[in-house]
Amino acid sequence: MARNKHPEETVRSILDVSFRLFMEKGYEHTSIQDILDHLGGLSKGAIYHHFKSKEDILVAVADKMMSESNRRLAEIMNRIDLNGKEKLKTIFKASLNRRVQEEMFTVAPDMRSNPKLLFSFLQETVEEAAPHYVLPIIRQGIEDGSIETDYPEELAELIMLVANVWTNPMIFHCSAEESYRKFIVFGQMLRGLGVDIIDREMSERVRELSSIYQQNM
Amino acid sequence: MARNKHPEETVRSILDVSFRLFMEKGYEHTSIQDILDHLGGLSKGAIYHHFKSKEDILVAVADKMMSESNRRLAEIMNRIDLNGKEKLKTIFKASLNRRVQEEMFTVAPDMRSNPKLLFSFLQETVEEAAPHYVLPIIRQGIEDGSIETDYPEELAELIMLVANVWTNPMIFHCSAEESYRKFIVFGQMLRGLGVDIIDREMSERVRELSSIYQQNM
Repeated sequence: MARNKHPEETVRSILDVSFRLFMEKGYEHTSIQDILDHLGGLSKGAIYHHFKSKEDILVAVADKMMSESNRRLAEIMNRIDLNGKEKLKTIFKASLNRRVQEEMFTVAPDMRSNPKLLFSFLQETVEEAAPHYVLPIIRQGIEDGSIETDYPEELAELIMLVANVWTNPMIFHCSAEESYRKFIVFGQMLRGLGVDIIDREMSERVRELSSIYQQNM
Repeated sequence: MARNKHPEETVRSILDVSFRLFMEKGYEHTSIQDILDHLGGLSKGAIYHHFKSKEDILVAVADKMMSESNRRLAEIMNRIDLNGKEKLKTIFKASLNRRVQEEMFTVAPDMRSNPKLLFSFLQETVEEAAPHYVLPIIRQGIEDGSIETDYPEELAELIMLVANVWTNPMIFHCSAEESYRKFIVFGQMLRGLGVDIIDREMSERVRELSSIYQQNM
């Protein structure tokens, strides 16, 4: 590929090719050279002009996957046929079933050896998703009486941290069975906090996602 | 300081001096040069022979602080006058009041910009402290009837993750007041899981520790 006059197109090509390779070979098994080989002769210098490392490419790929998917999740927030608690359950179910979940577990990065991705993921979870997606729903639930708490901000963070970080085999290595058990305990924890939204089907979906990761890591 | 024939003494000196400087100036405000200046002319090369970076020194300092302190915590585990639940509460209270907590919050590293320390801390918390300190106590509690759970391993991990990571201002920046609120929610969560061990005094101690950190960061 000749040097492009439009750097945003170069970046898009790098991200598209990287995503495809990460999906096919797994992140840990894809090299910068593999990516270059599929970019029709782009130079190593050109790629390093846009990204400092392979991990930086992964962070950008993951950001892109998440933001596309988050836009779809936001639609649930605007539904008027559900109370706050039902909405929270619906958004969790939809999150577990959305394509980006299977894709991330197929790309299968080990976050423990990719600290930048881990940070970006922790931030996305606790500082983006919790206040922007979960908190407004909890506030609605408090208003309509379906959720009872004096600590909505903290509850939103705790829910996201436990669901996204603790049960996540990319961060804490665990078998599919262990992921399943963790999600059951997450459900018990939420029940204790007055938010009974986790059912067996969701826990089983977590086991399934975790086993996709085990196969691809 | 002349080149030492006993490398373990050099390492000990580096750790002692570093700990003292981290406590006085804060980790983020201490440079490798500061450490060298207090080691009587040890060369930069000599320090880099033992540690790759300032962060590596911090990880070693923190490990040393934790392991000395953990030995004292272990004594609580062997007490025969407490049931499992009481022991868990006692160990939490002791953890909050032990010197290493104040020291870490005085050293005040920002774990978000020190990924190696964050990893070491996550590992220490979820893969060391949870199975070795918390799990045996939960098992005892199940036997003596003071704790009811079908998921002792998961409960031990969840307790440690939420208490040590989520409420920790070194990882998730938050004001002293926010740390306090998080710890209250942690208490509610545990109550819901049948482990009612967090009292107001402990939450207030968390607020105090968090404000030590805010002053030193």
